[in-house]
Formats: sequence, C-alpha cells, structure tokens
Amino acid sequence: MTESPQGTAVRTPGPVAPRGRRGRRAVDVPDLVARARDGEARAVARLISLVEDASPVLRQVAAALAPHTGHAQVIGLTGSPGVGKSTTTTALVRALRAAGRRVGVLAVDPSSPFSGGALLGDRVRMQDHAGDPGVYIRSMASRGHLGGLAWATPQALRVLDAAGCDVVLVETVGVGQSELEIASLADTTLVLVAPGMGDGIQAAKAGILEVADVFVVNKADRDGADQTVRDLRYVQSLGGRHAGPGAWRPPIVRTVAARDEGIDRVLAEVEAHRRWLADAGEGVRRRAERAAREIEAIALAGLRERIGEVRGSAALAALADEVVAGETDPYRAADRLLAQL
Amino acid sequence: MTESPQGTAVRTPGPVAPRGRRGRRAVDVPDLVARARDGEARAVARLISLVEDASPVLRQVAAALAPHTGHAQVIGLTGSPGVGKSTTTTALVRALRAAGRRVGVLAVDPSSPFSGGALLGDRVRMQDHAGDPGVYIRSMASRGHLGGLAWATPQALRVLDAAGCDVVLVETVGVGQSELEIASLADTTLVLVAPGMGDGIQAAKAGILEVADVFVVNKADRDGADQTVRDLRYVQSLGGRHAGPGAWRPPIVRTVAARDEGIDRVLAEVEAHRRWLADAGEGVRRRAERAAREIEAIALAGLRERIGEVRGSAALAALADEVVAGETDPYRAADRLLAQL
Repeated sequence: MTESPQGTAVRTPGPVAPRGRRGRRAVDVPDLVARARDGEARAVARLISLVEDASPVLRQVAAALAPHTGHAQVIGLTGSPGVGKSTTTTALVRALRAAGRRVGVLAVDPSSPFSGGALLGDRVRMQDHAGDPGVYIRSMASRGHLGGLAWATPQALRVLDAAGCDVVLVETVGVGQSELEIASLADTTLVLVAPGMGDGIQAAKAGILEVADVFVVNKADRDGADQTVRDLRYVQSLGGRHAGPGAWRPPIVRTVAARDEGIDRVLAEVEAHRRWLADAGEGVRRRAERAAREIEAIALAGLRERIGEVRGSAALAALADEVVAGETDPYRAADRLLAQL
Repeated sequence: MTESPQGTAVRTPGPVAPRGRRGRRAVDVPDLVARARDGEARAVARLISLVEDASPVLRQVAAALAPHTGHAQVIGLTGSPGVGKSTTTTALVRALRAAGRRVGVLAVDPSSPFSGGALLGDRVRMQDHAGDPGVYIRSMASRGHLGGLAWATPQALRVLDAAGCDVVLVETVGVGQSELEIASLADTTLVLVAPGMGDGIQAAKAGILEVADVFVVNKADRDGADQTVRDLRYVQSLGGRHAGPGAWRPPIVRTVAARDEGIDRVLAEVEAHRRWLADAGEGVRRRAERAAREIEAIALAGLRERIGEVRGSAALAALADEVVAGETDPYRAADRLLAQL
C-alpha cells in the first residue's frame, strides 16, 4: 500500500457513528479497525491520518487498537542523510517479504524518498512494493513540525501493529533530540554509517551511537569501509551503555544495500538482538519504559490544553489584575488557577 | 552596583528563618526584601540569585515582593548584535541618572558586555556606574539556557521594581522567540538598527518590527543612515499593528549613542509613549496580559513538575504494563495518571 488519498471517505449510515466536531464526516472507528485488521490498506491509511491529525476520535481509535497491539517487532533505522537509509529500508522490506512477513514502514524523515523528497531511483524502487498487500508504507513527514511527528509516530505504530504487521521499520534521520526519541520507539535500532563521511566520529558526537543495537556500514564496497569499521570499534571500546557482562554488544554489519548484500546478515543480527531482549527481560522493560513516557507525554499535553482553555477567561483576567495591582504574586495566582481547573 | 559574589551569606539567627532544602543556608526573605527596598545592593543581588536559581524560597520571595511592585517603567532594548545596544543602554543610564532616577539594567544577551562577552571599551564604560548606588546592573545570561532566562527575567524585574527602581532597562538580542517574549515584558520596546546592516529588512523578516514602540537608528553618523530611516518608513507604511486611528505610530530616532547624541530624544519618545499607554488604557492592558501569560507559564511548570514526580513511580509503571499488555491505551492511562495527581 502506498499512502491513500486524504479525502477517503469512510461513511456509515448507522446512528452509532460518532460525529466529529465541526461537522466532519462521521467515522465508524470499530468498523475501521476491523477492516484494518482484515488487511484493508485504505482503512490503515485512514486510521493513521486520524491519529496524525489528532482527530476528535483519536481516543476512540487508541482504545479500539489497544487489544490488538504488542505483536509487531519495531526496527528503527537512523543515520545521516546520504548513508542509504531508504535503500536499506527497501532491501529489508524485500527480504522480510521473501520470508513471508507482513511489513510496515514509517518514514519519519523529510529527506526520505518515501516522504516525497525523493531521488527518482529510490522512489521507483519502492514502487516495487506498491501492489503488495503485505507492505504498508507511510510517510510521517508530510505535515506538521517534528515535535508533532514525535507525538504522532507511536500512534501510527500502534495502527500498523494492530493491522497485523509482523515488523515495522521506522526510518528517521539521525540528528536532533526528536529523532532520537523516535528511534527510542524501536525494539532494535540500526545505526547506519557510510565510509568516508566521518560518520563514526560525528555519530559519537551526536550521541547516536548510544541508541545503536546494530551498526550497519552501508556502501561497504567503497574505499574507507575498513576505516569506518575500525572507527566504530574504537568508539565502542570506549564503553558506554554496552559495557558489563551479559550486555548486548552491538555488532557491526557491512552492507551494499543497493545490491541487497549483507541484508540477510542484518536481519540475522536483528533476530539475535530480539532473542537477547527476550532472554534478558530487556524487551519488556523497554516497551514498558516507552509506554510510561508516552503516558506522561499525553498527560502533560492534556494539562497544557486545559491551561490553554483558560486563556482569555475572566478567571485568568481577574488573577492577572490582582498581580498587576500587587495584591498577589504570580505563584499564588497560578495555584488558584490550577485549583479552578 | 555590579553583580555581587554569589556566596554572599544572609544569615539570621532567629527561629523564624525558613531553612531551604538540602541544608542550604537559611534565608530571611522579609528581611532581605526590606533591605533591598532600603537600597542595599547586596540584598537586591541576592534576591535575583534566589529567583534565578529557582530557590526553594522562590514563592516566599514572590509573595514578599508583590505589594511593592508595579512602580517601575520597563524599557526593552533589542536589535541585532553590533547595533550598539550596550552603548545605548549605557547612555540611557547616564541620562536617567542625570535626571535623578533610579535605574536597573537586566542584560539578557549572552553577547552583552554586561554578560561578560565584553568589548573592553564597553565594559570599562559601564564601570562608570559601578559606584553609583542608584544603578543596579545584572546579567541574566550567566547560567542556564535561554528558556530558563525567559522564565527568570520577569521575576528579576519584580525584584528591581520592588527595590525602588524608577526605570528598568532590559537588553536582549533581537533574534528568536524567547527574546521576543522577553521584549514583551517591556512597557516600551526600543528596536535598535544601524546603517548598512540591512537591518530594516532583516528585522521585518524576523518579526522584530512588530514589537517596536520606538525605532532607534544608532550610529547615525555613518553612511547609509538616511537609507536605513527610509527603509524603516517603508516597512512601517506596510501597516501592521500600528495602523488605525489613535494607534501609536513608532517614531524613528537617530542616535550616536557613543557620543550621547539623540539619547534625550529617545527618552522624550519613551515618555510620549508612556503617556499614550496611560491615556489609551493600553499600559494597564499590556501589564495584565503579561501577568496572565506569566501565571499560565507558572501553572504549566507546576503541572509538569507534578508529572515529573510520578516518573519511576509504581503507579506509572503499573499503567505502562497495562498499555504494553494491550489492556488499556495510553490515553486512558494518562487520564488515570492525572486522576491520581
């Protein structure tokens, strides 16, 4: 599936269909979720649009998805522009499909071909999967700023998970805090580097190495690949979170993704990491931590919204007047504002 | 007064002295406020440090200051690096002191000489005021990031206000949202530009013209001053918030601050603006709006703190486990988390 047109109407005549605010078209969420679970690409696309747009039915969607989540293995791909993330994603999709697995792709990278900022070659290549009902591809970069994406991505993941994806690949560009947060959604994070980009050192500086579960040295047929591998080994030797007995030591895999070389090896390491996560109890811990962060973020957003609602209210205006008059201070005023919420 | 050493102890032996957490030295806030109001520079510096550091006694400080605030006229100075903000600030201080007014300066600009990023000439020049008990100078850029400064600056303003300053000059560098927010603290905002910097157009792009109550074309003895004035007039002619009858139309004043030229004219326009604010009721409206924003920000910070307190708690962990198990969704979990706060 490629991204379906945004206008896709999902109408239901029944009286139970909840109606969104501002006269939006009615959305029958249970029906939509059922159809997504049946593998209907349009229903999946529509659900992702609903969560992306923070639709009024967002909560209903989240509730309907919950019982069907927890199955998908989430693989993050991150790295600087030009290392070949999209080519690698394409090769991984091909290999996973050959193994009979249902695959979702979330491209959270404005420069990704999946997001429209395409090199024609890559774009055409992804079209290989366009007619394959076992592949869902979705760009998360088409609207809103990255903060919004960081927020919407976990929800979109849930949609793909509930829709029966065995694996979801999340492609992010490896710079900045938001991207690191998105990468942290993954069960296994692949950090891609390429020879001659000074990436090993750059990545170390950006803290990106800390999120790596598997290093992929792509374009390994180029000069400098050996040096890049040595750089990574050196940086790894400096320690970090992977020290200690029983710890996972991120392997370094060489690939030429454009020719599918090394891709099976990447998937083998991902599988080894999955087993380690399960054996060490780390997988459950990571998912719980991720859920806790998401709950916190939603709670905080809800509170911010409630505060936003008092903006321009008579209550806030009255408190502000008291502060201006020196009858109270902003802290006591804030306490009273909160007491009124 | 220049910034006093941070270690200044304010001890009181009495049993009423509240003791900060973590065994900090006791602070007798009412005594400190009384001494600041008596013009004791050390007490002023200590109070600003307390609010800047978000001391445990912050709320007590705010409460003690409140009855004594609302007197000071706040003048913001903003503009690109190099336009002469600090030189202009210095000249304004000199003129205001000559008129017998007590003056505070808050430099919220990492590149300001007052913040230590000094040209020696400017630094020395400010030393003129070092022994003058009618001038308080404080850099707000010495610690923390700008977000923190945006938060601490209104509190520091309150300290200077309560300490009896007639005028407080707030110097900010004119780029970025945070600086605009700080500029919005002012009753009257001076936007400084200089010839040949393309500043008129740059400023228009940055939205900085929107905050101007008075334009100051500094270094007006240089080539291009006429063009800069024409640029500003042109940009003004495009309209914006100053359109409409009875509206304030920002005057354009030429200065050579390094030689004190035009400074009296700037102060005359500031005074004209102050009268307009009073006559149009705009001054009270601005202060109320500012107080409302501050109350909101404090309320939100308080809520964020409360959410932060549940991090790692058993309650959040239990909710996260339910989400991972698909027994609930993050939205319902967030609701339950909030209900527990």
